Amino acid sequence: MSVWSVEDTTLMAEAIRLARQGQYTTHPNPRVGCVLVKNGSIVGRGFHVRAGEGHAEVNAIKEAGDAARGATAYVTLEPCSHYGRTPPCAEGLIKAGVVRVVSAMQDPNPAVAGRGLQMLVDSGIRCEVGLLEAAARELNPGFIKRMETGLPWVRVKLAMSLDGRTAMQSGESQWITGAAARRDVQRLRAKSSAIVTGSGSIMIDDSSLTVREAELSFGAGLENAAEIVKQQPLRVVLDTAGQMSASAKILSQPGRTLWVTLSEREMPHAEMLTAQTSDGRIDLRWLLEYLAANEQCNEVLVEAGATMAGAFVAADLVDELIVYMAPTLLGSNARPLLQLPLDKMEQQKRLKMTDCRQLGDDLRLTYRFHVNTTEGPV
Amino acid sequence: MSVWSVEDTTLMAEAIRLARQGQYTTHPNPRVGCVLVKNGSIVGRGFHVRAGEGHAEVNAIKEAGDAARGATAYVTLEPCSHYGRTPPCAEGLIKAGVVRVVSAMQDPNPAVAGRGLQMLVDSGIRCEVGLLEAAARELNPGFIKRMETGLPWVRVKLAMSLDGRTAMQSGESQWITGAAARRDVQRLRAKSSAIVTGSGSIMIDDSSLTVREAELSFGAGLENAAEIVKQQPLRVVLDTAGQMSASAKILSQPGRTLWVTLSEREMPHAEMLTAQTSDGRIDLRWLLEYLAANEQCNEVLVEAGATMAGAFVAADLVDELIVYMAPTLLGSNARPLLQLPLDKMEQQKRLKMTDCRQLGDDLRLTYRFHVNTTEGPV
Repeated sequence: MSVWSVEDTTLMAEAIRLARQGQYTTHPNPRVGCVLVKNGSIVGRGFHVRAGEGHAEVNAIKEAGDAARGATAYVTLEPCSHYGRTPPCAEGLIKAGVVRVVSAMQDPNPAVAGRGLQMLVDSGIRCEVGLLEAAARELNPGFIKRMETGLPWVRVKLAMSLDGRTAMQSGESQWITGAAARRDVQRLRAKSSAIVTGSGSIMIDDSSLTVREAELSFGAGLENAAEIVKQQPLRVVLDTAGQMSASAKILSQPGRTLWVTLSEREMPHAEMLTAQTSDGRIDLRWLLEYLAANEQCNEVLVEAGATMAGAFVAADLVDELIVYMAPTLLGSNARPLLQLPLDKMEQQKRLKMTDCRQLGDDLRLTYRFHVNTTEGPV
Repeated sequence: MSVWSVEDTTLMAEAIRLARQGQYTTHPNPRVGCVLVKNGSIVGRGFHVRAGEGHAEVNAIKEAGDAARGATAYVTLEPCSHYGRTPPCAEGLIKAGVVRVVSAMQDPNPAVAGRGLQMLVDSGIRCEVGLLEAAARELNPGFIKRMETGLPWVRVKLAMSLDGRTAMQSGESQWITGAAARRDVQRLRAKSSAIVTGSGSIMIDDSSLTVREAELSFGAGLENAAEIVKQQPLRVVLDTAGQMSASAKILSQPGRTLWVTLSEREMPHAEMLTAQTSDGRIDLRWLLEYLAANEQCNEVLVEAGATMAGAFVAADLVDELIVYMAPTLLGSNARPLLQLPLDKMEQQKRLKMTDCRQLGDDLRLTYRFHVNTTEGPV
């Protein structure tokens, strides 16, 4: 473990800020930022914008020009060692004459996994790993999880009343959250590789599940909204019985729709995937493994009703729960947040709150599963 | 409407801070603060500590001594005009030679209601009313409501899971919130004139509903905890059928317990009040009017189960809802937050969130009823 100076930390923080600028566009690649520093001054900045284009290090070297010679590189992820769509970044750093590389973390990609750093060390470059690692991992929860486990990072998004309800018993419902919360959902979608829903939700809401430029750029919105919407997340409709109508709005949107079903009907404007089931329901783990392996999905957003969202939670496949909570009471007859039958207190699912913010009159609450809490119930 | 300077506003803010120091002890009197200022310097500060002792103005005049002559008084509430346990403050200000009085608000007490200010004006003192009025009203929601409507300010306190549940279907429950949230409840109790509960809750939890010095003074707690616990809030047990056991813990605590019942049993260590019912249930509005009129209750805290809490909400008698939300899912079979059967979206109870803060791993959410929201659902 190296000991880093305040200057090192400040510069890595800048690299992380740069990486974040790619958060809506790098899919299926990771978000990476790089800062080149010489004699205490930043001589080059770069981040990965989108797959097929230059990596962060290449962009920073380009900006630095000759000044890269003798510089230190701060990178949020280990420089790659393999030829992909672009030549390896480790090679680029060596050629540019960088003398020291500080990396926030090793690349979890088994094709790299330390080889990039080894290439640098073999060329006589001083390498250090681990500065602001936790923050760097937060840039790429999906990419890291996919590389490490073969599963994407799964977010379940829900909108509820203060008393944990989503609609009346009769099924009557309406938007209970405000415009700010709904615009925020657009950003959630934009950073997702895929959005998973059920045919039931499609039949009730006929939602399009797209990312829309107008909403992303609203107010102090995203400057690159027009770029972002060019790459729509894959829309995945789970529909064992093949109930979705061929006139569903989701089918006429830009981008791809994947129809996961046992039906042998034709579905125009959708790609069909034969569902693998267990107990008559689509096997959700299989689905996620499929999306990771075949679609390179890093982050998957589940936008579904209480039944499907509850099934993901019950199967312990959820990493993050994002709840938009409206300041209203729908009462004890109303429909539950999640269809999640538990009988004993010991079965409760304890979570860890990682964020809480106000959006208009609503709250957005973010929770993680599978994290030790700092304080349990007493 | 007067136009006030930044200095005026700063000084009134200081008077409000002073008033807040009495928040746990002035019952049944309002919390009031006073600052005396001469030649731009504060010459006296005072606040009302407890009923029977000096009012804020008197305490500030005492501190100022001769310097009060020619001073301006900033008071959070109109100086009183009537002889109570102490002489009228308006008289005290006149005698002290104060030349200007800035009051945040008129006294809602019909026995004062402008008469205090009139006394001052009649003595040639320049009077202004309304500076920081909204903040000053927040000091005394209960006192003001009682004076204006004959009802106390009603807070309902609940602890729930993220999915809006309080216990398992079987009745199995345990503390789901952490120690910080439970200590916070002690402060809620401490500022309440009375705590209302049901015999059902008493039978299940056998709670004492007391304010405890150790918890109030824990960590960066209240300095005057020992003083506060001397005046326990009145404990009110609603028990139409007279089911409470004579050995219930609540009966052996310091302070008074009021047993509201139709039973003719004896209940040692409790004062009995014959319940007024409607449809076989205790008439909650009658109860609150009784507590306001006969016990001078300003702020009443309802600490009860889903049925009684739901009944208060359904009867539109609640001003504030305080929810401690634990980061856990209890599932869709678990018990609801409130027994509140609603059938249509148009019956939903929209609230206004006024505060949100983290306490340990939990969130404390504060909502008000009967407030226009800034943004409705679309």
